[in-house]
Amino acid sequence: MNGAQSLIRTLVNNGVDVCFTNPGTSEMHFVAALDHVPEMRGVLGLFEGVVTGAADGYGRMADKPACTLLHLGPGLGNGIANLHNGRRAQTPIVNIVGEHATYHRHLDAPLTSDIEGLAKPVSKWVRVSSSADDVATDGAEAVAAAMGAPGGVATLILPANTAWNDASGAVEALAQTAASLAAPDQVRAAAKAIEKAKRAVILMSGKALRTGGLEAAARIAAKTGAEIWCDTFNGRIERGAGRVTIGRLPYFAEMVDETLEGVDQLILAGTKPPVAFFAYPGRSSILTPQGVEPVVLARDSEDLIQALEALADEVAAPAIDKLEVDPRAVSEVPGLPAAGDLTAGTAGQSIAALMPENAIVSDESATSGLASYALMENAAPHDWLFLTGGSIGQGMPVATGAAVACPDRKVVCLHGDGGAMYTVQALWTQAREKLDVTTVIFANRSYAILQVELMRVGAENPGPRALSLFDLTNPTLKWTEIASGMGVEAMQSNTAEEFSDHFKYCMNNKGPHLIEVVL
Amino acid sequence: MNGAQSLIRTLVNNGVDVCFTNPGTSEMHFVAALDHVPEMRGVLGLFEGVVTGAADGYGRMADKPACTLLHLGPGLGNGIANLHNGRRAQTPIVNIVGEHATYHRHLDAPLTSDIEGLAKPVSKWVRVSSSADDVATDGAEAVAAAMGAPGGVATLILPANTAWNDASGAVEALAQTAASLAAPDQVRAAAKAIEKAKRAVILMSGKALRTGGLEAAARIAAKTGAEIWCDTFNGRIERGAGRVTIGRLPYFAEMVDETLEGVDQLILAGTKPPVAFFAYPGRSSILTPQGVEPVVLARDSEDLIQALEALADEVAAPAIDKLEVDPRAVSEVPGLPAAGDLTAGTAGQSIAALMPENAIVSDESATSGLASYALMENAAPHDWLFLTGGSIGQGMPVATGAAVACPDRKVVCLHGDGGAMYTVQALWTQAREKLDVTTVIFANRSYAILQVELMRVGAENPGPRALSLFDLTNPTLKWTEIASGMGVEAMQSNTAEEFSDHFKYCMNNKGPHLIEVVL
Repeated sequence: MNGAQSLIRTLVNNGVDVCFTNPGTSEMHFVAALDHVPEMRGVLGLFEGVVTGAADGYGRMADKPACTLLHLGPGLGNGIANLHNGRRAQTPIVNIVGEHATYHRHLDAPLTSDIEGLAKPVSKWVRVSSSADDVATDGAEAVAAAMGAPGGVATLILPANTAWNDASGAVEALAQTAASLAAPDQVRAAAKAIEKAKRAVILMSGKALRTGGLEAAARIAAKTGAEIWCDTFNGRIERGAGRVTIGRLPYFAEMVDETLEGVDQLILAGTKPPVAFFAYPGRSSILTPQGVEPVVLARDSEDLIQALEALADEVAAPAIDKLEVDPRAVSEVPGLPAAGDLTAGTAGQSIAALMPENAIVSDESATSGLASYALMENAAPHDWLFLTGGSIGQGMPVATGAAVACPDRKVVCLHGDGGAMYTVQALWTQAREKLDVTTVIFANRSYAILQVELMRVGAENPGPRALSLFDLTNPTLKWTEIASGMGVEAMQSNTAEEFSDHFKYCMNNKGPHLIEVVL
Repeated sequence: MNGAQSLIRTLVNNGVDVCFTNPGTSEMHFVAALDHVPEMRGVLGLFEGVVTGAADGYGRMADKPACTLLHLGPGLGNGIANLHNGRRAQTPIVNIVGEHATYHRHLDAPLTSDIEGLAKPVSKWVRVSSSADDVATDGAEAVAAAMGAPGGVATLILPANTAWNDASGAVEALAQTAASLAAPDQVRAAAKAIEKAKRAVILMSGKALRTGGLEAAARIAAKTGAEIWCDTFNGRIERGAGRVTIGRLPYFAEMVDETLEGVDQLILAGTKPPVAFFAYPGRSSILTPQGVEPVVLARDSEDLIQALEALADEVAAPAIDKLEVDPRAVSEVPGLPAAGDLTAGTAGQSIAALMPENAIVSDESATSGLASYALMENAAPHDWLFLTGGSIGQGMPVATGAAVACPDRKVVCLHGDGGAMYTVQALWTQAREKLDVTTVIFANRSYAILQVELMRVGAENPGPRALSLFDLTNPTLKWTEIASGMGVEAMQSNTAEEFSDHFKYCMNNKGPHLIEVVL
């Protein structure tokens, strides 16, 4: 057994059995070893941003890591943006990067670069294997590091000779470390803060947004009047009909200020005090209302669901079934839009009405997606995956990985046209793996968010040369041709009815599809 | 004048008047300033790998930097692979990366990351501007750093408030530092080494491969019998009919060993002793013949052409016009291939026969391109730009930038299908800017080089799961649809005649075209 075989066997022993990859020469032994360890599934991406984004989507849905296999520093470089998003989503990812043989590195061959230097900004754990005998242990520890609460990116750098040299063998499954429990005095402090508040807000993110956390929070809210809100961008939230509804902080800082006006107690569960996404001249970046000292119920490294349940018990909230008003009640089942213009709103209505139960939404629709998010509050129950790190080009890769993790669930990817071009190669992987992903491109032919932001940062009277940099009409992207060129069946919708028909077709037929919504 | 305006005005004052960009909110003031400094041309790329690769292609041809404008750490991340290639090509690039406002950074908003950490591995110079008053000086120094011999990537990180705050003004052109001269004793040592050699090789790269360096080297060769060779991958070489022909070291280590067998003196001009591109089990990575101590005629920071001319004079070589055999003589003018099968070879023959004078070739054709390179030795004079850093996805962006730098020259991009998918978005920029680029995709439907490398690294009996990761037939990429989807006129060639016709059409018509060569 060589080092590569010992590593793959160890990864499988530790629950990692999908490898998203675009390998090169220095990774050849790892690739060859795939035929020795058939439990590991190799999934090819035609660009590393697809690979790392898919690993992110997989980890968010599987609650365990996939591994990547990237080619040296430049391959890692191509994957950095989506590793950044994965880091912000706290997704467990075992990020394996090939490296030159240990004795080759100092020769500074053309592909040599500082891989550790590139990996550190996006990784919670980085290790360079030093020999074939270490690779298995390093791999097992990488899995443990990626899984340790909160999840994150564990980067293992694999010099080629550690893969091809003989190794002593694989490592069995390591014991998993559970998230630590929030201290009882944190729970009591949160209860006390809520008790004395005029307006208390519990701000949540991470695993607090799974059903268990949401239901505990709803109990607290029902009993105390505290409000429950989540961050603007979260790795994953369970929502839809029959689930607890929760407020979402707006994107624009001035709207957060309005939203939090009058809040005198802010309780944090798995997140940090709110800050502006960007700085704007003359405006504060800190969005915690003045004079409020946030109370930490649970840090992101702690068991958020347990902490919320403990707080619900501390405030003597009844069980969710015993509440006067069931917070999971469905107020309104969405219907199809009336005939007429196709807009982000009418498209969102169709999606909300037609999306099947248990779907997964990968959302990078920026300006167009807000309508869908609100409309789908009472759609069939689903998971919503956000653009967590603000780095565009996440949506299609994350959808790809989510579909690999959950082959029996429909994946709907809502995407702006600007961001979709970043990692458009994901469509090919969806076709190759016959993944059940429907991509909806909101084609407004612009970086619309930047047209807004240009005004908001106070860049006055923008001229034509500035504005042309946000304009995607010259030439117009033909999405149906691009998708079909990569093997994905595609259609273009120009009216609300047409979109409903197209979307219905995609919901009723398995496999990858793309719909261009012409706005 | 705000900081952004002072920076752009300073860049223009210092000869930088093209900005390849994909900006975001933190770069909005820079974008707005483009309308205040109309001499700066903004060129939009739909992905940062296109942006940085275009800056590389521009710098190789213009011998001065373009600037980039990238959005925070993830935008830089997306550009790292082609900055790596640019670093290896020693291309002057002013790489500008937006950053959060100085007072916003510590808040760890979603897009925050360690930009300096990401920039260092690909940059020869990194600076974070600390105030609007510093930005102009920082910009001028970035240009000087990028231009200083050898050229390289100077990364300037621009916190948003340094762009929007008032600045004192622009900086005028800084004096340029010329490359230093090789010391006379280096020249004498090289002459002495050649004199005592049985077989001397002068190995060259960088600016030694421009006409001046090649002609000086040819004089030395004619006079002394020394051979002149270049590295396998070089930023730019001037070649074709009427120019000096020079050997090129092969890619595979064992072929380099054969090539250099019997060499007892190795003279280096602007390059390092040869090493293997990758390590292979049981094979030395060092390719300098055993016992040979290389003699450095000139380091890459020195004036290579001057050093070669000094060496030519030192060995009393006649002027190039006075040599017995003119080393620029054309032995064979290429003709069109006979009718028949379309192969990399017959395609290369057509290209060699039809390419107009003064064309620029951006080559990332990997296994398919070797034929073209050899065949074009006596084609019309042209510049050849190589994949310098081994990171695929360079060819189309570099072609894009070269076309911006040289609007009156035809650019031919030779590309493998695997690598072309990496930065396929470059086609859109070519369409938008109406660039005169003809892209030839050698569609062998595989990562063919990896099929070879899998064997060479000794991964024996590869199984179907390994081999499937190099296979691009499932589904087949339809290049004509992909290109047309981005606004580029595209055609597919299936026979040698068809390719000749298509290529002739592209040479006779300005603007972007793509030909898929079905192999």
